[in-house]
Amino acid sequence: MYAEALAAAVAAGDDARGTTSPNPPVGAAIVSADGRLVGVGATRPAGGEHAEIVALRQAGDDARGGTAVVTLEPCNHTGRTGPCSHALLAAGVAEVRYVHADPNPDASGGAQWLAEQGVAVGPITGRAAALEPWLAAVRLGRPHVTLKFAQTLDGFTAAVDGTSQWITSAAARRDVHRDRRTRDAIIIGTGTALADDPSLTARTSDGELFDQQPRRVVIGARNITGAAANLVRLGYEQYPSLDDALTHLWDTGARDVLIEGGAGLAAGAVTAGLVDAVRAYVAPLLLGDGRGVLAGAGVGTLADARRFDLVDVTTLGADVLLNMTRKDHP
Amino acid sequence: MYAEALAAAVAAGDDARGTTSPNPPVGAAIVSADGRLVGVGATRPAGGEHAEIVALRQAGDDARGGTAVVTLEPCNHTGRTGPCSHALLAAGVAEVRYVHADPNPDASGGAQWLAEQGVAVGPITGRAAALEPWLAAVRLGRPHVTLKFAQTLDGFTAAVDGTSQWITSAAARRDVHRDRRTRDAIIIGTGTALADDPSLTARTSDGELFDQQPRRVVIGARNITGAAANLVRLGYEQYPSLDDALTHLWDTGARDVLIEGGAGLAAGAVTAGLVDAVRAYVAPLLLGDGRGVLAGAGVGTLADARRFDLVDVTTLGADVLLNMTRKDHP
Repeated sequence: MYAEALAAAVAAGDDARGTTSPNPPVGAAIVSADGRLVGVGATRPAGGEHAEIVALRQAGDDARGGTAVVTLEPCNHTGRTGPCSHALLAAGVAEVRYVHADPNPDASGGAQWLAEQGVAVGPITGRAAALEPWLAAVRLGRPHVTLKFAQTLDGFTAAVDGTSQWITSAAARRDVHRDRRTRDAIIIGTGTALADDPSLTARTSDGELFDQQPRRVVIGARNITGAAANLVRLGYEQYPSLDDALTHLWDTGARDVLIEGGAGLAAGAVTAGLVDAVRAYVAPLLLGDGRGVLAGAGVGTLADARRFDLVDVTTLGADVLLNMTRKDHP
Repeated sequence: MYAEALAAAVAAGDDARGTTSPNPPVGAAIVSADGRLVGVGATRPAGGEHAEIVALRQAGDDARGGTAVVTLEPCNHTGRTGPCSHALLAAGVAEVRYVHADPNPDASGGAQWLAEQGVAVGPITGRAAALEPWLAAVRLGRPHVTLKFAQTLDGFTAAVDGTSQWITSAAARRDVHRDRRTRDAIIIGTGTALADDPSLTARTSDGELFDQQPRRVVIGARNITGAAANLVRLGYEQYPSLDDALTHLWDTGARDVLIEGGAGLAAGAVTAGLVDAVRAYVAPLLLGDGRGVLAGAGVGTLADARRFDLVDVTTLGADVLLNMTRKDHP
């Protein structure tokens, strides 16, 4: 039941990723009493409406006696917007189904309050991938960190001579840009900033900038202004350490951030237990030697390897994208 | 049209893999004049019947006026068995469809001969993966070589201290055994033989030996009898070089062989251009350092990387299996 509404809510939440922090990218759908999908909405950028409000407005009177399917439990607090629990009741919704309970103590209680008002409330089984980094961030009290890299099958991100353009195919590179658009920040080390003069922007396949751009963050003490012309032009933040960066990013609303390299920063993040997910683009090449993904973070024996759970595998042109989450995640 | 028959023929050929060399693992299916699947067969072990003969016997009189769907063009020569082209005509088959033309000049001509006798003959679009190593071997004049390895995501087959059991999960290890069963020979270097004392057998998940076992082949000059007790017990062949081994294996009927390591043998095979396919089991682990897949075969710059085409990607328990074929295959 509600499979269509759930899919619509999940898709709406996916589309909102990267635009809502510090709020979660929630999706909501309203099914009328006679079973029609009458409203779909997603969280607006912070300060704007929550997903339920957008979906209810679209549904209008058709919400009366109907069902709301939401990827996250409706909030019960008055922040910059009124409580969604009250809006759902006022619209006459008879039933509310949500994928994830709200882990935020300030906002939770929406389900209980609605139940007390006589609304049928309960969970619905589904996967709302767009919410997962936000949920982990709230649990961890810091931004959720994804380590992204592109490598040859045998684990090299560049050849011995440093050549690395392009290990992966155009389809994989397009995916990198679509993914960047969904993140609150992209983090690199000063070494990468100095060596590559990257832009760290999210671009369409035509090279146009997406409307939504992540914050550009550099870690390390070295002054990069002389060599990193693109970052100087576009603007960037710099912090002495990854810890400092994550603290400041959390305090200023970032919940979902991406580390893009280099190997030293990646290795430090892995060693410090700060890598929650890995997004690895693997190209069907063998180099035999070159620059590895992690520098200086080797463990001596297999029992000490960092273990992940494979979440999904996607073929992208000639390459494969492996998405993984940390196995021993707190 | 003939989708069911094609699928049955392909599946029968798959099941025969590893039992037919030097003959190809062909599958055949017979559809009666009124559209029923009335016979399915695969190549019997060398000296035995070809797939068409097995399928025709099963079909009996139902073959008359029907269609044969075969993964390989019916042979036209009298080897240890009579020509399949003649058997098809004698059974009254009105139409013959085949996935691959026969590349073997001694055996080809079956389609043309059948057409001359008034049978409708032509290709059918499909994939008969079981035949691909055999087809490549005939083209190359040596056994088709697949390099198999299990590695961490970052490209290590063992940790710095040599630990490697088990990088991959039980599901991946089961797949290794199922795959070994389909090969004519498994090839390792003396270093692996001495260090691991492997059995190189194909076993079920209960540890039982499959009926079909590949030949066990060791490459190198060192005497392994003192340390490789399992190979001594089970029997093995040893050759001074991979070239010598491939020549002798070809001459004695092997068409589809697997290199299982170690890194020196793998590197030599890649460098010599002898690796036609790669079967990589990738575990979601990061080691940061360790023993790489290829030892001493590093290329200096990305343009010289060995390039493959991804054929398929399969999730096996916690791991991923990537199957690739050589991009610049002759």
